[in-house]
Amino acid sequence: MPKNDRLLRALRREPVDCTPVWLMRQAGRYLPEYRATRAKAGSFLGMAKNPEIACEVTLQPLRRFPLDAAILFSDILTVPDAMGLGLYFVEGEGPRFRHPVRDAAAVARLAVPDIETELRYVTDAVRLIRRELDGAVPLIGFSGSPWTLACYMVEGGGSKDFARIKAMALNEPALLHKLLGVVADAVIAYLAAQRAAGAQALQVFDTWGGVLSPAMYREFSLPYMARIAGELQRGDGAERTPLILFGKGNGAYVEELAATGTDAVGVDWTIDLADAARRSGGRVALQGNLDPATLYGSPEAIRREAGRVLDSYAAGNGGSREGHVFNLGHGMAPDMDPEHAAALVEAVHALSRR
Amino acid sequence: MPKNDRLLRALRREPVDCTPVWLMRQAGRYLPEYRATRAKAGSFLGMAKNPEIACEVTLQPLRRFPLDAAILFSDILTVPDAMGLGLYFVEGEGPRFRHPVRDAAAVARLAVPDIETELRYVTDAVRLIRRELDGAVPLIGFSGSPWTLACYMVEGGGSKDFARIKAMALNEPALLHKLLGVVADAVIAYLAAQRAAGAQALQVFDTWGGVLSPAMYREFSLPYMARIAGELQRGDGAERTPLILFGKGNGAYVEELAATGTDAVGVDWTIDLADAARRSGGRVALQGNLDPATLYGSPEAIRREAGRVLDSYAAGNGGSREGHVFNLGHGMAPDMDPEHAAALVEAVHALSRR
Repeated sequence: MPKNDRLLRALRREPVDCTPVWLMRQAGRYLPEYRATRAKAGSFLGMAKNPEIACEVTLQPLRRFPLDAAILFSDILTVPDAMGLGLYFVEGEGPRFRHPVRDAAAVARLAVPDIETELRYVTDAVRLIRRELDGAVPLIGFSGSPWTLACYMVEGGGSKDFARIKAMALNEPALLHKLLGVVADAVIAYLAAQRAAGAQALQVFDTWGGVLSPAMYREFSLPYMARIAGELQRGDGAERTPLILFGKGNGAYVEELAATGTDAVGVDWTIDLADAARRSGGRVALQGNLDPATLYGSPEAIRREAGRVLDSYAAGNGGSREGHVFNLGHGMAPDMDPEHAAALVEAVHALSRR
Repeated sequence: MPKNDRLLRALRREPVDCTPVWLMRQAGRYLPEYRATRAKAGSFLGMAKNPEIACEVTLQPLRRFPLDAAILFSDILTVPDAMGLGLYFVEGEGPRFRHPVRDAAAVARLAVPDIETELRYVTDAVRLIRRELDGAVPLIGFSGSPWTLACYMVEGGGSKDFARIKAMALNEPALLHKLLGVVADAVIAYLAAQRAAGAQALQVFDTWGGVLSPAMYREFSLPYMARIAGELQRGDGAERTPLILFGKGNGAYVEELAATGTDAVGVDWTIDLADAARRSGGRVALQGNLDPATLYGSPEAIRREAGRVLDSYAAGNGGSREGHVFNLGHGMAPDMDPEHAAALVEAVHALSRR
């Protein structure tokens, strides 16, 4: 167990001295030391693929703020990259794949990569970070969800309308299920390998589940996350490694996500935590859900809004703060002020002290 | 009354022979005749500000498809433009304002424009379209919601994170309320003028309400839409002009929107219409909610998905199709196939025939 075990205890809904907090994209461009490391490394992908640099960048926010967890510095697209899609980044435009997956032949070529060879740089980073952390705080490993990875794989990069993958869902649903099945197997192997390398909690990012209609979400996103939750549990020992299923726009599906067997559900800021807590009924821990744009407000406003999120959770959880992991509802942005992140972390701990 | 009064009857929840359908952005770049008109006119704003061209473009989709309504060709940003913000468009990047509203002095300078002088080109277009329609189908007028217009006014254009307006909401809520109050008054005057000029139904587009947390939505978006609903009703005659409140990401607020006094609520595709119908409890008509990306699917898939939307509404409305206006959950995109729009309109009428 890490010295600071608030995160792991909260994910098991056990009592803690104050609510644990970490921030999605806490290692990132808003930190001058990150920008300095990146300037030396040359590229984002170069950083992610170098375990020493990934370790350094993972630890940077922990030197500044009393965060209750580290999260592996990496990218959700390492998995499709290892499947041969050829990931690259266009400055200012986001990720792209050289070989998008758009027909049956391309789907047939997909195979689950061997993680300890193809994604060795990730498991090496996990081992190195664990050593450097020396038990101070737990390390979170992560993956994209099958649906979210498939979005990038079919679209060939980011998208506004998801035209290609939605056309595939409508016209060739069996082909999309085949694609999602292989990706889900890869995600399960990837998360299991991160766990074996030392990750003490795991998060699945379903960034794009919320762009689907409810019927489509229940067909193409939710079942694959349920499969991940089931498979990871089956392969886990007595001291289970907690799993967090996070999704943007997943507020309508909190009950269904809680029923997958996951340990925690992460939600964005468009749902009241009180509502999410009532609807999940204590079956899971909840993670979230301050609007990241709150960090553009003053430290006073940040403190007030953090208090609202904390109190909202307790209001829906029978007055108790247990089972809550504080986070943003989505990742931090490059133009945010590190001092504001500091104010947020301080406020969460101070306002939730038992 | 127009000869085809399905839309107006459905908005009053009266029986119709089949479910009326219109499509957000049905007049647009996906039509070759629109692109030809635009090439002659030179610019989007040039088209919107010329009543003859606005009329021509409004009528184009009606010549192709048996749509049950026309919607004024215009832009939601005409109102802030008339307030002196200096609207312009950067090709491929969307709208911009020369004079964004970012401080108390700028808010203090805002005033409700005189619609029949400053926005005469809009009311002239409404009058001309009514004459040209000659009672065939009803004409829908529209406006952006106060919150959505304020987003563009404060950000100075489109935004991904809404950093500036959210910072204003957090740090200077009274200033933002002052801004929203003036904009709401302008919207009310604008919609009343469109109605006086001949618009037979009115829609408010709250495109960006869904980017807010529930607490923020209830403070900065919902009350201003409720004020619009109340004021327009007060100024209306015996034969009331129906009002539709549409919002992206408003699924969580259907009950509250239905309680504003509006005639109809328009929702996007991330909520089941069955759920929306149950929750609004017959107090309003509902408009929606096919995922626009469905138009990237095959005509067979479009027909199947249209049937699902129709049946979902009926399932939540005690088995009845009355009180449903079929639409997309958001606007059409330039790369959509007009033949697919034709298939959709045909399917809605055929599958909903009483």
